Amino acid sequence: MSKTNPGNFFEDFSLGQELVHATPRTVTEGDVALYCALYGSRFAVQSAASMAMAIGYEDAPLDDLLVFHVVFGKTVPDVSLNAVANLGYARGRMGVPVYAGDTLRTVSRVIGLKENSNGKTGVVYVNSVGMNQNDEVVADYCRWVMVNKRDTSLPAPDPEVPDLPDRVAPEDLYTPDGLDMSGYDTTLAGSPHLWEDYAVGEKIDHRDGMTIEDAEHMMATRLWQNTAKVHFNQFEQAKGRFGKRLIYGGHVISLARALSFNGLGNAFRLAAINAGAHCNPTFAGDTIHAWSEVLETSSLPDRDDLGALRLRTVATKDLPCADFPYKGEDGKYLPNVVLDLDYWALIPRKG
Amino acid sequence: MSKTNPGNFFEDFSLGQELVHATPRTVTEGDVALYCALYGSRFAVQSAASMAMAIGYEDAPLDDLLVFHVVFGKTVPDVSLNAVANLGYARGRMGVPVYAGDTLRTVSRVIGLKENSNGKTGVVYVNSVGMNQNDEVVADYCRWVMVNKRDTSLPAPDPEVPDLPDRVAPEDLYTPDGLDMSGYDTTLAGSPHLWEDYAVGEKIDHRDGMTIEDAEHMMATRLWQNTAKVHFNQFEQAKGRFGKRLIYGGHVISLARALSFNGLGNAFRLAAINAGAHCNPTFAGDTIHAWSEVLETSSLPDRDDLGALRLRTVATKDLPCADFPYKGEDGKYLPNVVLDLDYWALIPRKG
Amino acid sequence: MSKTNPGNFFEDFSLGQELVHATPRTVTEGDVALYCALYGSRFAVQSAASMAMAIGYEDAPLDDLLVFHVVFGKTVPDVSLNAVANLGYARGRMGVPVYAGDTLRTVSRVIGLKENSNGKTGVVYVNSVGMNQNDEVVADYCRWVMVNKRDTSLPAPDPEVPDLPDRVAPEDLYTPDGLDMSGYDTTLAGSPHLWEDYAVGEKIDHRDGMTIEDAEHMMATRLWQNTAKVHFNQFEQAKGRFGKRLIYGGHVISLARALSFNGLGNAFRLAAINAGAHCNPTFAGDTIHAWSEVLETSSLPDRDDLGALRLRTVATKDLPCADFPYKGEDGKYLPNVVLDLDYWALIPRKG
Repeated sequence: MSKTNPGNFFEDFSLGQELVHATPRTVTEGDVALYCALYGSRFAVQSAASMAMAIGYEDAPLDDLLVFHVVFGKTVPDVSLNAVANLGYARGRMGVPVYAGDTLRTVSRVIGLKENSNGKTGVVYVNSVGMNQNDEVVADYCRWVMVNKRDTSLPAPDPEVPDLPDRVAPEDLYTPDGLDMSGYDTTLAGSPHLWEDYAVGEKIDHRDGMTIEDAEHMMATRLWQNTAKVHFNQFEQAKGRFGKRLIYGGHVISLARALSFNGLGNAFRLAAINAGAHCNPTFAGDTIHAWSEVLETSSLPDRDDLGALRLRTVATKDLPCADFPYKGEDGKYLPNVVLDLDYWALIPRKG
Repeated sequence: MSKTNPGNFFEDFSLGQELVHATPRTVTEGDVALYCALYGSRFAVQSAASMAMAIGYEDAPLDDLLVFHVVFGKTVPDVSLNAVANLGYARGRMGVPVYAGDTLRTVSRVIGLKENSNGKTGVVYVNSVGMNQNDEVVADYCRWVMVNKRDTSLPAPDPEVPDLPDRVAPEDLYTPDGLDMSGYDTTLAGSPHLWEDYAVGEKIDHRDGMTIEDAEHMMATRLWQNTAKVHFNQFEQAKGRFGKRLIYGGHVISLARALSFNGLGNAFRLAAINAGAHCNPTFAGDTIHAWSEVLETSSLPDRDDLGALRLRTVATKDLPCADFPYKGEDGKYLPNVVLDLDYWALIPRKG
Repeated sequence: MSKTNPGNFFEDFSLGQELVHATPRTVTEGDVALYCALYGSRFAVQSAASMAMAIGYEDAPLDDLLVFHVVFGKTVPDVSLNAVANLGYARGRMGVPVYAGDTLRTVSRVIGLKENSNGKTGVVYVNSVGMNQNDEVVADYCRWVMVNKRDTSLPAPDPEVPDLPDRVAPEDLYTPDGLDMSGYDTTLAGSPHLWEDYAVGEKIDHRDGMTIEDAEHMMATRLWQNTAKVHFNQFEQAKGRFGKRLIYGGHVISLARALSFNGLGNAFRLAAINAGAHCNPTFAGDTIHAWSEVLETSSLPDRDDLGALRLRTVATKDLPCADFPYKGEDGKYLPNVVLDLDYWALIPRKG
């Protein structure tokens, strides 16, 4: 028997199956510095212990997306090594803050299965839960991927498609314990705009652009111990459809989030991912721009110092976003649109 | 009103104005490792806790230029986002040592303003002060930049050009408290040459060369949270004068300083920047070489174990430095000279 | 006298000579994160404090090869700056675990000298010992390099070739104190295969491929403070035989070891390097694949929970390893084979 991991094929998954993923990972200040070097993030709460402690954190928390990528990366060897496409995300909630020194691991459960009519592939829905060393949840999300069958002669399982919400309800957003925004300093945070300043329908061009290099996205993707082969092997990719290494979609999410600082500088915590699509592939040499639209604003239970913004952040390649490029008249994403992310962010309210 | 930062234009600055810059940053061992990975620095006091503690530091201090870049990076969104040129530095003094875990922030004051005769741009002089979490000064320097006017019809302000010294006086150099060089080990430091071994006028070719990659300078510049657009956006730069991303001048300073170890291995602390010019632009693919000249040697008040060398370190691109390339007969920098840095370094004296 | 380091030439070495190498280095969590970003290593004991502490380590130890590269890097300025070729390794034993915060340094002794018949070069054999801040040995290995003579008119020294073993004896492998494998979790480690599952002669194709970028290998090599010029200076290399920067052989070793996780996921400690050859040069753009053969299996004295595998790991460039490419009919390495490493790894035994 081969000792290498062949990954799971469609018929290897069963409804309710639990997948205990390998390779727990102690995240450290080294990861924090690399995250800054790779994306240039400037959200002050993650950048400075002083800013975090001023509002009740015990230290600077790790960037929410750094946590998401580590939790996600663990699922790849079991869930998506034979994936044809990463189809979607839903009901993603970030949990307790993660600090340097915490150890993260991930467990997934299969919550849906549906074979495609071609009999060659199927869609697998998983709910993945990332936990720290105290078994506290740090991230909890669903995603679905299209996976190859190994043996196409096998019968299809009973189709089961989970009922996933369009968005996390604002009352279900997790607010870190002990937060008190009265100590928040907008000058040091770099933006005067608070929750009340954002209106539904408002669109913001984040203006700046960032070009991606192969060395960068590979270092990032390895840092998350994400083993998806298409990101690393130019020898193999050269023979494929694009001729190039594909960039991990999460790399683009992190770039877009970092770019969104320019216009959303106080939206310090990404609290939930409602939905996400990697609309078109991204390659080294592409320059990423981003814009955001405010989809909802919501107060939070028992809080008058903190509110939530539901945002759509769209990233493009080689296309500035002054006119908010999104979909064409046919309802399809424009070819230069690479990311459509729907999420909740927490932001201080006026005093 | 736009929520993105347009940066300040010339008419937005006023004499005496205080700029409290955003994004305090907790620097860590992660930054130290990245600094080593990016520049290959080998000064032993910054490399090993044992070497630093042997001479009275409480731990290995961060590289002085790492501190400078973080302090400098904070000023960019307010001072130089609309800058046409970074014209000069003066009176830069490094302060208390910075250790992993310290949180740095920067405040600047406008100390000079002079509109150019074309009425389209002006020169802004600022004094920027970086501080740690205890409000101790870690770096204090002046720089001046040429900034665009937004509205060229506005009248020019009264010109005010600050009187800046040619060099920091040696008696004003800050020596970290408690230093005692008797525990310094030249063998482990990698060089036998001490203060007395260097003579005014002596020139040293540092010999080694280092080629810069786009991934490297972008990671560095993001690590300092420096947001100057020309370093990151190839899509935009492709249309410009050079067709390429410009490299942050500080990246070249750090490379030149790291190269200078070969010949100045005991000059362990960069204590002051007297002047600096980024003479020509640097791009990915350029190979940096460097040479240094001893401009002055100075004893330090009340110290017989430590002296100061005033050095000019010149960096070139794609030009080895065996014959010390500098300026042409016309007094202008040769086209391959990219950096002319005048600074003070501290170095142990003979016992 | 020049203040720059010319490196040692063949006639500068003498039998029994001790070389106290410069630049002690405090290794940190920053190095650990960079190691993960550069190689994507997934061995669980190094990845997570929880996994390490479950088997008796006090914390997650640094990757053995990270330790080796730091120890090795220190020898370059004294041993191999004028080396023509890195000829071999032998009797390499890893010692006490290294943790973030330890300070490493290296001392070498010249154990052999043999001038080549051409009178222009000679072979220098050194035994290098890396130690931590408590003078405990962390790595102890021999290597031999071909070094240029400065003055070819000098007489040859009496030839002395040390008697080096083919392999470290299993009873000489160092097992970290206090290890108890009963707490080892194969599910979280990502592989079910233990010592008893591997048979002598078994070959494993590690399947995955990883393309190397110039930014990556230069960052790695600088991180180890390895100053060999051929890795960094494209301006100079462009004139040479290959026209490109050569990649540090240790970078390929680390990539091959990280790739070998897929098939050897529980071989958590690289305990000894028996022999190693960098068979062909590697350049940026090359995609590395690897395969391994089990050369020996050995129990360890007084341990029924831990065994040793002697492995040959072979890395290739731009050549997948399904048919285990190695040497041609002429007994020479195939042109795409870049590494042949013979080493011992520790792996848990069945309960």
